[in-house]
Amino acid sequence: MEYRKILENLSPYKPGKNLEEIKKEYGLDEIVKLASNENPYGTSPKVLKSLSEIDILETYPDNYCTKLRKKLSKKYDIPEDYFIFGNGSVEIIQMISRILLDSSSEAITCVPSFSSYWSEAILQDSQIIEVPLKNYKFDLNGILEKINDRTKLIYITNPNNPTGTIVTDIELNNFLAKVPNNILVVLDEAYFEFVKNSEYPNSIRLLKKFSNICILRTFSKAYGLAGLRIGYGITSPETILELEKARVPFNASFISQIAAQTAIDDTDFVDNCIKRNKEVLEYLYNELDVLGLFYIKSEANFIMIDVKMPSEIAFEKLLKQGFIVRPSFPKMDTFIRVSIGTMDQIKKFINALKNIY
Amino acid sequence: MEYRKILENLSPYKPGKNLEEIKKEYGLDEIVKLASNENPYGTSPKVLKSLSEIDILETYPDNYCTKLRKKLSKKYDIPEDYFIFGNGSVEIIQMISRILLDSSSEAITCVPSFSSYWSEAILQDSQIIEVPLKNYKFDLNGILEKINDRTKLIYITNPNNPTGTIVTDIELNNFLAKVPNNILVVLDEAYFEFVKNSEYPNSIRLLKKFSNICILRTFSKAYGLAGLRIGYGITSPETILELEKARVPFNASFISQIAAQTAIDDTDFVDNCIKRNKEVLEYLYNELDVLGLFYIKSEANFIMIDVKMPSEIAFEKLLKQGFIVRPSFPKMDTFIRVSIGTMDQIKKFINALKNIY
Repeated sequence: MEYRKILENLSPYKPGKNLEEIKKEYGLDEIVKLASNENPYGTSPKVLKSLSEIDILETYPDNYCTKLRKKLSKKYDIPEDYFIFGNGSVEIIQMISRILLDSSSEAITCVPSFSSYWSEAILQDSQIIEVPLKNYKFDLNGILEKINDRTKLIYITNPNNPTGTIVTDIELNNFLAKVPNNILVVLDEAYFEFVKNSEYPNSIRLLKKFSNICILRTFSKAYGLAGLRIGYGITSPETILELEKARVPFNASFISQIAAQTAIDDTDFVDNCIKRNKEVLEYLYNELDVLGLFYIKSEANFIMIDVKMPSEIAFEKLLKQGFIVRPSFPKMDTFIRVSIGTMDQIKKFINALKNIY
Repeated sequence: MEYRKILENLSPYKPGKNLEEIKKEYGLDEIVKLASNENPYGTSPKVLKSLSEIDILETYPDNYCTKLRKKLSKKYDIPEDYFIFGNGSVEIIQMISRILLDSSSEAITCVPSFSSYWSEAILQDSQIIEVPLKNYKFDLNGILEKINDRTKLIYITNPNNPTGTIVTDIELNNFLAKVPNNILVVLDEAYFEFVKNSEYPNSIRLLKKFSNICILRTFSKAYGLAGLRIGYGITSPETILELEKARVPFNASFISQIAAQTAIDDTDFVDNCIKRNKEVLEYLYNELDVLGLFYIKSEANFIMIDVKMPSEIAFEKLLKQGFIVRPSFPKMDTFIRVSIGTMDQIKKFINALKNIY
């Protein structure tokens, strides 16, 4: 077959070892996965209950996500035609790339950030112009300097993944005022529920002022629905119409729609998860201070720790003790990203971390 | 925003009226949807039961679909690295388009056939070279005549949607022997479970002979899992590696994987659905003969009927009586596609059909 040349710039997928295989290989009884920023407190029991009541799977799901759309429209006080739904918010990154990027255009973002921006741009025969983070934060002025006639898209990850830092309301407003309004600015807010910093922007309110922003949110993180795959985008109805052209029909499953609707209503569950995340994070800060390890203060449910050795080596040393973390971020060779697990998990993790020195 | 020019060739999505709105507008108590070739006998009760046992949704699904992969590998006696999974088989059509098509290449298929081939090709700035059906069947010789240096992909829909006709084993073998082996031939077999014709090819066996075929199958039709979105592709490991580069991570949800595994094992359920589909189809043939209406004999769970009037008018006349069918297929102006419902539904449909004359 004659595949497209651009595929040479993408790595083939290698299936990782599953947890059972790792347990066997390392002789472990238990593995704690702190690598994917999942919710350690599970899913709302109300969501699990709603699944057991499902008695129809043979019909295609509502292609317009009518009920979920209405619920979010009400929650945010935004018209219904501002929403699009995806099989995870990563699928909306795909749609955005497909409507804006090709060989004649480019996107800008900071590095390191979420890897799917890159793979989707490469698949479009486009490219990502990379601006280094500044003090581990998105460098908005650096991005402004890179804007040119080819720029069609800017990604702002807020909080950023993997650094957990935020762009403030003032910074974002100043930035948006300077970005030409024919460039789409994606505010990827996958972790926004965790942020308690009063300087964090209320991006929903910015929709009225800036028609060129697109907010991405997900049910995979604070809501604990990563296994179901559902996320959404909020942007102008004009852009929604174009995104819809790049959406695979029936992409949000019937069960995902039901689960998301139920999850939104169980605010107690989410609030409690966020509160506990913060408590564990504060505990972790203290322990890392005692250990004398540098870390980046995080507004999300993960943290970047400078382990003072190549991150892949720290990864192996932790894996042998039953902890899976995320190494190998570009330009941050000695940092590992650790998801904020439960207090019990993080206490054990701190012990494992001590053992690697 | 400056969207890609190619989007001008795609229609924006318009949400259809939902069933409740239609009921209200037409004063109907009941609506029978015979438009999407869904399974009128539902889903295996064992699948529904498996959902009620799910107690974890907060972790990302297995990105390799290990268990489902093993099960299918065993069922078909094909190595595990021949499979790729999609959020419905339509997502695999997207991946195929993204690894093969761009402005320098083109695909060939017959018209009318499955509409997503077109939209995905347009999004790639490529095009579909259209060959008319011949006697309502895929015209394989017509396709061979259109092959040129730009051809990278051929879609054979077998059985074809919307006509329900098949390409036979002999026809397919002769065709594949003549297609250059650097062109990927997609055998879209979404409805293969329904075919009882002994001349239908066993495409799985052809994988050894032709490394350039990719078989698409789905759980949305005979297995009654349209609401969950899961389909798969079977092709050479070489092509799988390239397809994986175009796959959004974690695209097959945890629940879809569980449901598909359970569904495969309940062979009684599927066999019974297929048997009943054939019984109702035979009944429908007889009734249409009595009515003197031309129809295309179908190997699938739908049928094309020549209603001897513009299909949109027949659609409206049937809708007023509570039946939703599919009109407006290209080059088949007076045909409607009708899904084979239950015997009771089709008996009532025949009465409604009589009323439109």
